[in-house]
Amino acid sequence: HDGNFFLRSADDSFRMNLSGYIQFRYATNWQNKRDNETIHGFNNARAKLYITGYAMDDFGYKLCFATNGSTGEVYTEEAVVDMKLDDDVKLYAGVTLLPFLREDLMASSTLLAVERACVTKGFGVGFSAMLGAKIDVSDDLKLNVAISNGTIGDKYGYTNFENNSADIAVTGRADWKLAGDWKQMKDYVAWRDDSDAIFVGAAAHYQRTDRDTTSMAFPMDFLAWTADTLWKVNSWTASLAVNGGHYFTDENTDTNAYGTLLQLAYNMDDKMQPFMRYEWSDTRMGGSSDTNQVVSAGLNYFLNKHNAKFTTDLVWCFEGTAVPGSAMVFTGDSYGTGLALNHTATDIDDNQIIAARAQFQLKF
Amino acid sequence: HDGNFFLRSADDSFRMNLSGYIQFRYATNWQNKRDNETIHGFNNARAKLYITGYAMDDFGYKLCFATNGSTGEVYTEEAVVDMKLDDDVKLYAGVTLLPFLREDLMASSTLLAVERACVTKGFGVGFSAMLGAKIDVSDDLKLNVAISNGTIGDKYGYTNFENNSADIAVTGRADWKLAGDWKQMKDYVAWRDDSDAIFVGAAAHYQRTDRDTTSMAFPMDFLAWTADTLWKVNSWTASLAVNGGHYFTDENTDTNAYGTLLQLAYNMDDKMQPFMRYEWSDTRMGGSSDTNQVVSAGLNYFLNKHNAKFTTDLVWCFEGTAVPGSAMVFTGDSYGTGLALNHTATDIDDNQIIAARAQFQLKF
Amino acid sequence: HDGNFFLRSADDSFRMNLSGYIQFRYATNWQNKRDNETIHGFNNARAKLYITGYAMDDFGYKLCFATNGSTGEVYTEEAVVDMKLDDDVKLYAGVTLLPFLREDLMASSTLLAVERACVTKGFGVGFSAMLGAKIDVSDDLKLNVAISNGTIGDKYGYTNFENNSADIAVTGRADWKLAGDWKQMKDYVAWRDDSDAIFVGAAAHYQRTDRDTTSMAFPMDFLAWTADTLWKVNSWTASLAVNGGHYFTDENTDTNAYGTLLQLAYNMDDKMQPFMRYEWSDTRMGGSSDTNQVVSAGLNYFLNKHNAKFTTDLVWCFEGTAVPGSAMVFTGDSYGTGLALNHTATDIDDNQIIAARAQFQLKF
Repeated sequence: HDGNFFLRSADDSFRMNLSGYIQFRYATNWQNKRDNETIHGFNNARAKLYITGYAMDDFGYKLCFATNGSTGEVYTEEAVVDMKLDDDVKLYAGVTLLPFLREDLMASSTLLAVERACVTKGFGVGFSAMLGAKIDVSDDLKLNVAISNGTIGDKYGYTNFENNSADIAVTGRADWKLAGDWKQMKDYVAWRDDSDAIFVGAAAHYQRTDRDTTSMAFPMDFLAWTADTLWKVNSWTASLAVNGGHYFTDENTDTNAYGTLLQLAYNMDDKMQPFMRYEWSDTRMGGSSDTNQVVSAGLNYFLNKHNAKFTTDLVWCFEGTAVPGSAMVFTGDSYGTGLALNHTATDIDDNQIIAARAQFQLKF
Repeated sequence: HDGNFFLRSADDSFRMNLSGYIQFRYATNWQNKRDNETIHGFNNARAKLYITGYAMDDFGYKLCFATNGSTGEVYTEEAVVDMKLDDDVKLYAGVTLLPFLREDLMASSTLLAVERACVTKGFGVGFSAMLGAKIDVSDDLKLNVAISNGTIGDKYGYTNFENNSADIAVTGRADWKLAGDWKQMKDYVAWRDDSDAIFVGAAAHYQRTDRDTTSMAFPMDFLAWTADTLWKVNSWTASLAVNGGHYFTDENTDTNAYGTLLQLAYNMDDKMQPFMRYEWSDTRMGGSSDTNQVVSAGLNYFLNKHNAKFTTDLVWCFEGTAVPGSAMVFTGDSYGTGLALNHTATDIDDNQIIAARAQFQLKF
Repeated sequence: HDGNFFLRSADDSFRMNLSGYIQFRYATNWQNKRDNETIHGFNNARAKLYITGYAMDDFGYKLCFATNGSTGEVYTEEAVVDMKLDDDVKLYAGVTLLPFLREDLMASSTLLAVERACVTKGFGVGFSAMLGAKIDVSDDLKLNVAISNGTIGDKYGYTNFENNSADIAVTGRADWKLAGDWKQMKDYVAWRDDSDAIFVGAAAHYQRTDRDTTSMAFPMDFLAWTADTLWKVNSWTASLAVNGGHYFTDENTDTNAYGTLLQLAYNMDDKMQPFMRYEWSDTRMGGSSDTNQVVSAGLNYFLNKHNAKFTTDLVWCFEGTAVPGSAMVFTGDSYGTGLALNHTATDIDDNQIIAARAQFQLKF
């Protein structure tokens, strides 16, 4: 045990780590035009086992068995292998997260709030089967590029070979470190012992759809981009992301969407971290336009850093239309059950959604 | 290895245990009014992996990946974390079994017969997402109380947040030890080296249903209770449970159900344990009433206690109506495929069900 | 770590091994009469975790959590326990592969090509719940016999007790070693340090169907047989299998099918192994007859034996009818998505299927 439980060979050329975490959540949700205004409940949001390690020095692997929080089913969230080409380049292959949005790439166990933002769900491109490369261009610049099945797969990023609708999908992300240490990019917390850190990133995803695949949900091509930054200065953590998405359909009903996520937190010490979040997005589909706004505020209480922490927040969706999942601009569901929100009130201007959430997390 | 395989940190403040068990079963089932009177088959009734342990001394976790015996799918049967408040109080949170019936709380690997009783399936409240506390009131009295999503969830105790139909569910159980050691409460066997033991328990579960949730299967409130005892005296093991369940519907068609389970076993030595079981239940729904009776007899042959054991029994359902699962009084299916019984013969008075079952269990 | 990661007790009477592998695949598929002629995509063909070992010296267990490559779902591919009766006889019970075709019994991680042959998918009897015995008749002859639920179960070899449609299924296989070492039967590679090896095998499977089970897909009895051989001589590996299958229906529309699989490979060294494969099958159903032919050619590149290897091949289906999965002669789908083939072009004579596949495998 050195942070993770592990097994290794005598010469250390093979190693297997066993780890995981459980997130238990309570959420309640009010809507002022629903017949039954309140829904609430407990939820095992996440229960995961990771089997990771290396084999024969140069090869690595990561297998994650995760739990569907709504059904209890276990699925393989990640199964990915990698191979070092040299000290700076690593090839990887498997099902994992496409290298796109910063808040998606942040592990679910190191988020700032109880759950990712609506705007992250809406603009994220999710998990897919991919072949990629991680390149350390310099000590301060990392690239991650992947070709993949794209963002239109089954719910877990898997797809039946016959139904794969992406002709080609290419994703690339660059991360610059302007100050600090790379490991500080792994969470939104300004720990007392850490120095200041500043990161900037940008990513793009382009996907050409196979027009003849019968199962195709989106008969269009698709470009998404993001630019973001993460600051940890004087116990303050600030993160800003600007996202864009553009559908190019064959029937001239192109859709353009823009979103912004601002997160701000202050570490009173290594235990208490109040935070707030503001989200804005605008979707123009054909001639119509829709603006969404959400604000959240909450508190992290770290019993033992991310190993044992309690998080609570209040989410207020006060403008916009909660589009049902099946008509999402991108693949994610911005107001879904995973966020303890829901679609019953589609007109948020008149039927605001307010959700209160509390979560305990234990890593092992 | 000290009974379980484990990994631990040098200072023993972190520990991970890996264990599991496989139950392989053959069952055959006769009914005297079915066209094809006999059905039979092999079945992997259970195949489970447990990852349990503690982290940072005060926190514990339990993750169980289990196999659906009918479909082979893996699901997260339990994912629960706990925190010691002091030596006598432990908080826990996650998906696990509600603290209700004694035979449900007995691990599936330490049952007396091949499978739980029909009456246990019928009156059990099963798995749910909950927040609870285990309290050692004294050396001889333990309390376990929980608030939860209640007994009306998905098949694995999970539920989609939007569809959670319990407004509030509260469950509490008390266990008294009148003689013996608490670890003797974990099975129905009077091992030769053990002293005599006597346990008494009682539990109640109350659930208020959200009347406006569209997915609501049971538009009613629900109270269930049980009182039970377990005796291990002079190589004899006896267990008696009396269960009650009361539905309070909005349309004045209240249902009241009562059930009794008596189990009796004798340890000829630490290898051979013949046993018998008698079950009686009575359900009054509106003006109608139905009485069910089942007797079973069988034998446990312990090759190495519960680590390797062979169990066989004969189950005879001779009175009553085998209600289909969808119309169960409670959530379980008293005559379901998991028991190697089935619903084809609903009128058991005329179409008695007889099942012969044999099972081998290996723990690791 | 001694080839596998393991935990064991001080006296070595208990042991648990943790291992697994990931297969990542790219495949592309052309058909000359499909509107959209090409489909292609990445795929995590397999991602598995094995928990195996022994307990109390005489008992063994194997639990395999596998990933459905099309959906990401985790299922229990194998859960089987065994008990040594003496040095030569081992009883086993659980869900595992029926002891039938040689290419099915070869682990998915030690196949010659990227995937099993069409003719193996077509004639295989797959996984089932069974009770069996492995008998070492002599140093050179091994028997494996099993009674089981047969080949008509759920997709993972599991079945709901009520719906089990096999009255009885019996499978038996004999393996003779004419030269070499038994461990050489575990792959299709003639490693440089190995001596020559010759194996011969034969197996039969008979299944009587329960005529009254409503879920019965195949109201008929069923006999299948195979005879095969594996040669490893002078860096060459050759394997030939001849398979037969006979359905005896109640309506006199008996089906007889015959198939042949020839595999040939040459180890240029322990790194490079070019190979080719030829398949022929003929199915006579009622008065009609259909012949299928497939040829494949490819290359294995072993970075570290089967621990890290790259495999690529080209598959050309040039004669026959690609019967849809629901009308398969046996249970497998000979031209399914798992093989990166598909059913759109049913008339292969006019619409030949060509698939190019490449795969990387890492074991841990």
